Amino acid sequence: MVKLQYAFAALAGLVGLAESKDSPRQRAKALLKKMTWEEKVAQMGSIRRLLKLGPEVDEENYESRYELQHGTIGFGPMFNWILDALPIVNDVREKEIKDSRLHIPFITVTDSVNGLFISGGTVFPSNLAMSSTFNLPLFKSVAEAIREEQLSIGVTWVLSPPLDISWEPRYGRIGELFGEDSYLTGEFGHTYVQTMQDKDKNGNIKVACTIKHFVYGESRGGVNAASQYGGINHLFNDQLRPYIRALEADPAAVMVSYASVDLVPMSMNEYMIQEILRGKLGFDGVVMSDAGSISNMYTQSRVATSYADAGLQALKAGLQMELSPGNPAVFPNLIDNVKDKTVAKLIDEAVLNLLTIKFATGLFDNELPDVETSNKTLRQPAHLKLAREADREGIVLLKNDGILPKTPKQVALLGPFGELLNAGSYAAINVSNPKWGDSLHTSLKSALGEKNVKFVPAVDLIDTADDSGIADAVSAAKDAGFAALMLGSLSAPIEDPLFKKRTDGEFFAHADLGLPGLQQQLLDAVLDTGVPTVLILTGGQPFVLNNSTLRSNAILHSLLGGEFTSSALVEIITGEVNPSGKLTISMPQLSSAIPAFYDYLPSDDTGGSEARLGFHSAYQWPVLTKDSPMPFGFGLSYTTFDISTPTAEYKNGNVNIRVTVKNTGDVAGKEVVQVYHRPNTSVGIEFPLRRLVRFEKVDLAAGESKEVKFQIPNKELGYYANAKLKVQEGLYNFWAGSSSRVEDLKGVNVTVTL
Amino acid sequence: MVKLQYAFAALAGLVGLAESKDSPRQRAKALLKKMTWEEKVAQMGSIRRLLKLGPEVDEENYESRYELQHGTIGFGPMFNWILDALPIVNDVREKEIKDSRLHIPFITVTDSVNGLFISGGTVFPSNLAMSSTFNLPLFKSVAEAIREEQLSIGVTWVLSPPLDISWEPRYGRIGELFGEDSYLTGEFGHTYVQTMQDKDKNGNIKVACTIKHFVYGESRGGVNAASQYGGINHLFNDQLRPYIRALEADPAAVMVSYASVDLVPMSMNEYMIQEILRGKLGFDGVVMSDAGSISNMYTQSRVATSYADAGLQALKAGLQMELSPGNPAVFPNLIDNVKDKTVAKLIDEAVLNLLTIKFATGLFDNELPDVETSNKTLRQPAHLKLAREADREGIVLLKNDGILPKTPKQVALLGPFGELLNAGSYAAINVSNPKWGDSLHTSLKSALGEKNVKFVPAVDLIDTADDSGIADAVSAAKDAGFAALMLGSLSAPIEDPLFKKRTDGEFFAHADLGLPGLQQQLLDAVLDTGVPTVLILTGGQPFVLNNSTLRSNAILHSLLGGEFTSSALVEIITGEVNPSGKLTISMPQLSSAIPAFYDYLPSDDTGGSEARLGFHSAYQWPVLTKDSPMPFGFGLSYTTFDISTPTAEYKNGNVNIRVTVKNTGDVAGKEVVQVYHRPNTSVGIEFPLRRLVRFEKVDLAAGESKEVKFQIPNKELGYYANAKLKVQEGLYNFWAGSSSRVEDLKGVNVTVTL
Repeated sequence: MVKLQYAFAALAGLVGLAESKDSPRQRAKALLKKMTWEEKVAQMGSIRRLLKLGPEVDEENYESRYELQHGTIGFGPMFNWILDALPIVNDVREKEIKDSRLHIPFITVTDSVNGLFISGGTVFPSNLAMSSTFNLPLFKSVAEAIREEQLSIGVTWVLSPPLDISWEPRYGRIGELFGEDSYLTGEFGHTYVQTMQDKDKNGNIKVACTIKHFVYGESRGGVNAASQYGGINHLFNDQLRPYIRALEADPAAVMVSYASVDLVPMSMNEYMIQEILRGKLGFDGVVMSDAGSISNMYTQSRVATSYADAGLQALKAGLQMELSPGNPAVFPNLIDNVKDKTVAKLIDEAVLNLLTIKFATGLFDNELPDVETSNKTLRQPAHLKLAREADREGIVLLKNDGILPKTPKQVALLGPFGELLNAGSYAAINVSNPKWGDSLHTSLKSALGEKNVKFVPAVDLIDTADDSGIADAVSAAKDAGFAALMLGSLSAPIEDPLFKKRTDGEFFAHADLGLPGLQQQLLDAVLDTGVPTVLILTGGQPFVLNNSTLRSNAILHSLLGGEFTSSALVEIITGEVNPSGKLTISMPQLSSAIPAFYDYLPSDDTGGSEARLGFHSAYQWPVLTKDSPMPFGFGLSYTTFDISTPTAEYKNGNVNIRVTVKNTGDVAGKEVVQVYHRPNTSVGIEFPLRRLVRFEKVDLAAGESKEVKFQIPNKELGYYANAKLKVQEGLYNFWAGSSSRVEDLKGVNVTVTL
Repeated sequence: MVKLQYAFAALAGLVGLAESKDSPRQRAKALLKKMTWEEKVAQMGSIRRLLKLGPEVDEENYESRYELQHGTIGFGPMFNWILDALPIVNDVREKEIKDSRLHIPFITVTDSVNGLFISGGTVFPSNLAMSSTFNLPLFKSVAEAIREEQLSIGVTWVLSPPLDISWEPRYGRIGELFGEDSYLTGEFGHTYVQTMQDKDKNGNIKVACTIKHFVYGESRGGVNAASQYGGINHLFNDQLRPYIRALEADPAAVMVSYASVDLVPMSMNEYMIQEILRGKLGFDGVVMSDAGSISNMYTQSRVATSYADAGLQALKAGLQMELSPGNPAVFPNLIDNVKDKTVAKLIDEAVLNLLTIKFATGLFDNELPDVETSNKTLRQPAHLKLAREADREGIVLLKNDGILPKTPKQVALLGPFGELLNAGSYAAINVSNPKWGDSLHTSLKSALGEKNVKFVPAVDLIDTADDSGIADAVSAAKDAGFAALMLGSLSAPIEDPLFKKRTDGEFFAHADLGLPGLQQQLLDAVLDTGVPTVLILTGGQPFVLNNSTLRSNAILHSLLGGEFTSSALVEIITGEVNPSGKLTISMPQLSSAIPAFYDYLPSDDTGGSEARLGFHSAYQWPVLTKDSPMPFGFGLSYTTFDISTPTAEYKNGNVNIRVTVKNTGDVAGKEVVQVYHRPNTSVGIEFPLRRLVRFEKVDLAAGESKEVKFQIPNKELGYYANAKLKVQEGLYNFWAGSSSRVEDLKGVNVTVTL
């Protein structure tokens, strides 16, 4: 392997630009003046898949795109190993710097959900599992690790974080999101942007972020890329809330969604981009398309008469960069319209923004990454430790009749997920290849001894024809006297051999929130035996737990955990780790009893007493989750906690909340203290029954107590009316507790003055 | 019974107002000047339930309300018979005219869904069943009959028509609506308003109409009164479309909905009332609350700090009349604020509008209704004939393997609906009392002879405990050799003895679109026998037809038909009547595979080939209805029709479409020729895959052909962008056929120039 090392001076000399004491924007302006229209248009496009599996450069793709779309590059197949790929990619990067007319470096842009979007990095939990930790300091550390790993391979721009709220549980991509709550999503998103965009010693942004998908997450019927509704108050109080928070960390870019919002595809939605994003939200960075979303305007939504027309409409609406995984790309057509002054001006503005990111991330000044540093950085012990910790804290214990913790002598591991890694469709994991990580089968064998674990996959992931394995599973359960079933929904990357068996992730919607294939039948048969059973759910979605399923002695949801999920599960089952995850998506009680998010409006709960009629006549919202509610914030522990009635004081524009949390059980554990609020005053806008306003995860030894203090500035009690933030004087209700359920909360009132 | 007769002269003399040659508005202005604030505020309220069962005047209610809320009256219990009630009501009406200071008559306001909102009138089908006739001329005749019946009992203002589109199949009130299509709803709504508000020989409006519920029908989770989204383009292109059409007929009033639209409860939604309804839509009549919706602002939505505050906010937002079924009413509190100039001005505007309706409907000039005329008008043979015709045409044949038509020698009538009348929660029908109409049991016995019909209700409407009757039902089916099952969801009025067994209608949502109670088990058991089976569905909703259900040899949906539904069903089963109804709500394939309406956007169908994964990963919208699609416009006949490929010509601003429809079968029948369109050009706004633009029901003898012509002005091809109607030049696709399914349509293109 060739060691690559480039001297700062050499590269800077080649580029030959203004002194680096000028601001990135000044330097970009100077460079822009020297560029031809072809060079400018090319900056607005990308060579997203530089490599083929091997790895080797996909020359054909490169050549076909280079002329008019080479602002950014991406690696391509995630099953290439980065240490093999890096020298090849560096050669391409170096060639561009040396040989292109103006020596403008490529910027390497990749997805960044669980970590690197190519194999060889640490695989952290997906965002949904990450949010279930309710542990922001831990997430900050994870983001730092991801940042260092990305930087070490020359990625200085990521297509993260997603900030869409998961109000539509049928939507297949909620495993990529931070859950249903707009405050929690905003906090995780803000932390990610702030951490990734940390400045290096030269004042350069380490890794530029893209907040996305502006806006999305409530698509009709949960269908990927489907339309969704608008409404300025809904936008500002719900969907845009995480964006408003994350924008405080000044992310470099915004990616628009595939959706049509209020009937207008986002890639041409001038109102949303110019009036809302640029105007009301004050964003001045790069606005990019989602992959293929501009061409969709012509081929799918039929709001453009040609590819060229789609490109022009998108440019005029405000798009400045095109993500285009396949040919044809649309923006190269802009070259035919550069004599149009409006078009020319918009291209100049776009390229100025794009070059500014290249300067701001130090691309013109810093060395290319070297394999040695990368090798030291990737999967360093500290990162693996963090990943392990995140996997432990993201798992949610949904039910436990006392069976757990338990170290069984023998266990029957049943279900098709016993030998798979299910980390999400943007995780660089080959789900069935042990090279990528330990399965639950492997982890159980390590913990209990090989001979004490009998694994029977029993049923296929999706097929419903063959139930012949169920009998074997039942026998194994009876023989072992203890069953662990790992069941769920596969979210595999597009290149995975099992891709065709997946039912979760991008492109998918779940009209049925039960278990695919014959998994429910397998579970029912095992539960019928009466053998003590632990059910482990896996998938980036809530599942409907029917009455049969609820017979399980314990239920854990591992969501889309990272590479240490299996060992974390074993640690939790055996009690080495006390579970502390909390749901960030409410579990519906029926696939059609949706949406099921906790912060619904009072109007959505139009009282009555017809609960006896069940799902055939759900009079009110709580009926939909009445039997065994597992809403947002819910999750059990092996110990018990007492969270005191909160006290509240209003002083100097802040509400100060204090609670004492005590571990009243026998083992150490972590509890998430959650504070909810609502204005109990006239607010013009209808406010949800309650909303999360603060949370903190507290680590307590058995018997230990801690006081937890929260300070909430009054502006955070406000709401948006017609896009303006309003804070109301008057009485506010606050609650503190261990979940969003009424029975888990204690209240206090406080009067806010302005 | 006392015959009441009032001379025009006597009453007009009492009122002592300006000459009736003045316009209603001029007369209202003159009267307003004489009124005290108490009298004004009182006009804004109602005594909605004048009577108790008996009938007798509810004196306590009357006395408690009279002072500040007596603009309008309503009858109260619908199980009173109108001919008993009318003399009592007339006494009250007469007393008000004679004894009140200014002799201002009450105006009688009632609901009007299936006809009178009190017993004794003709009971027509509910709106959903009416819309399934696709027969506008028939509906016009029905509306005329309803109008004459209402007028004959002194009702001059009705709380109809509803114009909400049924995009949310879980919503319990879609039986009251005209289905999912915004064009069809607009046509039915417009016809209703135009017909009811026909002028009498003196130029008075016969019966004033209220279009409602502005806006509603897509509540979250289908929950009654839940919130819904906004979005100006969605509002104008979908939800407001029927309103825009119905407003062309100048309805007297608009009722706001219970919903919060874009987080603001409609009763205080100044934007929707002032900017949209008054401003963009130009409505200048009375805006009223829904029953209790103003008090909900305080008690439910918590956007008001007191009842009084709710009243003030509602008034300021534009509400002019309060429907208040229970105490306390809110608007009487306005009397405390009449010194506030803004409040005083708004009260004056409201009362002017309200008095204008009283003058415009001839209340100050016409005689009170007399019992004799009422007796002649109600249930006159022509009305009963119309009701029978409407019931025949509203029933939809969903499946027929050839078993129908058939006159069985013996039939086993199974299921709890065999002896019930299910006409909807606003129908004046006591569902289990034969006095109100014939059940299917009665109708079958009439047709086949008493001894040839064995009726076994077998299961309860909702209870799931007792399945003991299923065995009897199975035996009966085997004995008879032919089974008819009548199953569904009960939509009973609030005073009905079976009210507690209902699962459909106001206050209900269907998180499960299957059959309540043990009805599915009953059906399964009967189908398991292999006995030829006709399934008859009843209820104001679509039902999910699972694979077991689809084994039925024939399936009919009777929706919420009127009083002749049972005899119409027998006529259809035996072939005396050829079914001609078409669905106006798409039937979902799974309760959670929703929404399922046909006019979704191209974005909602984001292609792919993953249909094999079924509901666990519905890649695209059509997957949700793939197995046995029964969408909008679908319905079978006993004959076959050929609808030719349409021709299209654009001339003088109109698209002229011609098709020839031929009855290619052996029996006479009626076919609904449906024309759909979409612009195949750049429209800025995403347009649905196709939309209904015209329809006509054609009656054809066996072998007969007819040419059908449709003329479509180009403005009807437009769409709304930011509340402005735009019509685009370019190519348009048109299709004609027998349903909204692709396989039932033939296409033609035409170029539109402007």
